[in-house]
Amino acid sequence: MGRVTARRKASHVTADGAVSRPETLAVEEPLEIRLNGTPITVTMRTPGSDVELAQGFLLTEGVIGRRDDISRVEYCRGRPDPQSLRSRPPDGDDGMNTYNVLDVTLADDVPTPSLDVTRNFYTTSSCGVCGKGSIDAVRTVSRHSPGDDPTVVAAETLTTLPDQLRKAQKVFASTGGLHGAALFDADGTVLVVREDIGRHNAVDKTIGWALENSRIPLSGTVLLVSGRASFELTQKAVMAGIPMLAAVSAPSSLAVDLASQAGLTLVAFLRGESMNVYTRPDRVKY
Amino acid sequence: MGRVTARRKASHVTADGAVSRPETLAVEEPLEIRLNGTPITVTMRTPGSDVELAQGFLLTEGVIGRRDDISRVEYCRGRPDPQSLRSRPPDGDDGMNTYNVLDVTLADDVPTPSLDVTRNFYTTSSCGVCGKGSIDAVRTVSRHSPGDDPTVVAAETLTTLPDQLRKAQKVFASTGGLHGAALFDADGTVLVVREDIGRHNAVDKTIGWALENSRIPLSGTVLLVSGRASFELTQKAVMAGIPMLAAVSAPSSLAVDLASQAGLTLVAFLRGESMNVYTRPDRVKY
Repeated sequence: MGRVTARRKASHVTADGAVSRPETLAVEEPLEIRLNGTPITVTMRTPGSDVELAQGFLLTEGVIGRRDDISRVEYCRGRPDPQSLRSRPPDGDDGMNTYNVLDVTLADDVPTPSLDVTRNFYTTSSCGVCGKGSIDAVRTVSRHSPGDDPTVVAAETLTTLPDQLRKAQKVFASTGGLHGAALFDADGTVLVVREDIGRHNAVDKTIGWALENSRIPLSGTVLLVSGRASFELTQKAVMAGIPMLAAVSAPSSLAVDLASQAGLTLVAFLRGESMNVYTRPDRVKY
Repeated sequence: MGRVTARRKASHVTADGAVSRPETLAVEEPLEIRLNGTPITVTMRTPGSDVELAQGFLLTEGVIGRRDDISRVEYCRGRPDPQSLRSRPPDGDDGMNTYNVLDVTLADDVPTPSLDVTRNFYTTSSCGVCGKGSIDAVRTVSRHSPGDDPTVVAAETLTTLPDQLRKAQKVFASTGGLHGAALFDADGTVLVVREDIGRHNAVDKTIGWALENSRIPLSGTVLLVSGRASFELTQKAVMAGIPMLAAVSAPSSLAVDLASQAGLTLVAFLRGESMNVYTRPDRVKY
């Protein structure tokens, strides 16, 4: 059994009856992320690119701003090395490393957030939790502002991106079960593609890749997601300094409002030859 | 502006050029759930059925088991009454009730969980976070076991469910932005349909509805979701005592494994005349 796909028997039922056959599924496993030894979040993810996932998560939550803010990343037992990341043992029994707990040690000069970062980002002590507060929180925490990014992308280029993502989504093709995210240059050249059972994880992995490759802020790039554009995904784009977020499906009201405030170009319903540009349409040339 | 949909201007770009036009979007707003005054989670949701959402969340996380475990639910300021739930004021400025903070007071004999329940459910102090541990956690916490439920549903009935859900998803039709969840009787009669920007929220709302109507455990029912079957959604079905979960799209490995252990029938890729039955196929008659 691999770590990214797994096979399970299923009964395939049609109008003609049922046949038993093996099906390939996307693997889902918990990943606990620890900061200096303290658990801060557990996400259900597809194994692979875990270090990128953790780094992207910490960047888009405002805990770190650059690669040097992290001094070490290791699975709960033993450091990952490129070799072990490529050929991991399966989940073990008691005492075995499950490769599902990743401990991130921050550099000495980086303050450890005091609480669960996922909650802390939104939660207030007043009654006033609202969309505006969520947007203000992103603005307060973000180190980058995509508003001044002069990138312009041709509409014709944008229409090629979903096909490029689909062709690169190898695991989706075999399982139908994974969300995809990809970063492109302004001329439509793909920089990185990542897949995950969780849409936010797929995005964190691409942003973690960028951190690894010293590409933060991600000026001059387009982030494409295979599904909808939620507030959370828009937040991640803003936090990484990405000037354009494109989604194959619908955006939410709060995603559009955050994009508007942050100066991010938000494209959605990007299908075939058409798209909707909700904010900063000056970056789309047609 | 309503609370469920909102309009924003967009530039609709096609090969022929661009036109500016108003678009209807699904509203996304944070909902903070408090237990006896203490914030335990914030979820990004589509407003509406908030009390159901909170109740379904608390049930599927194992905090409560029945309606009487809750003594009161109120927005941070002032109790909700049926009238105000139907015609709420828009989000207010400072000091106004945003209707985004819901405080649940547990009955005297119900213990308050000590920590953030969403994290607590999965997190362990060892290195052994793994899929098996997540499954064991559900088994330990769940008050219901769908394994003994004798429900049988005809395959022909199952194939009618996605159309029924789609037709009932009024907001999806106008925005393309909402996930749907529905509960059906074994003969395919719809019991309740709920929509939300978050797939887990749509399910929590249907289960919260069942709690309100003293239908927990949900024996003899089918839960249909418009997207994929993840571990989390499968957990929710098990916790509510639902014997069959059906998904329009793919399941994950961990969803199948949990369903297998819990004796839940998991149907996925339910499209047109066909489907895959991953676990307990004895409940599907063909």
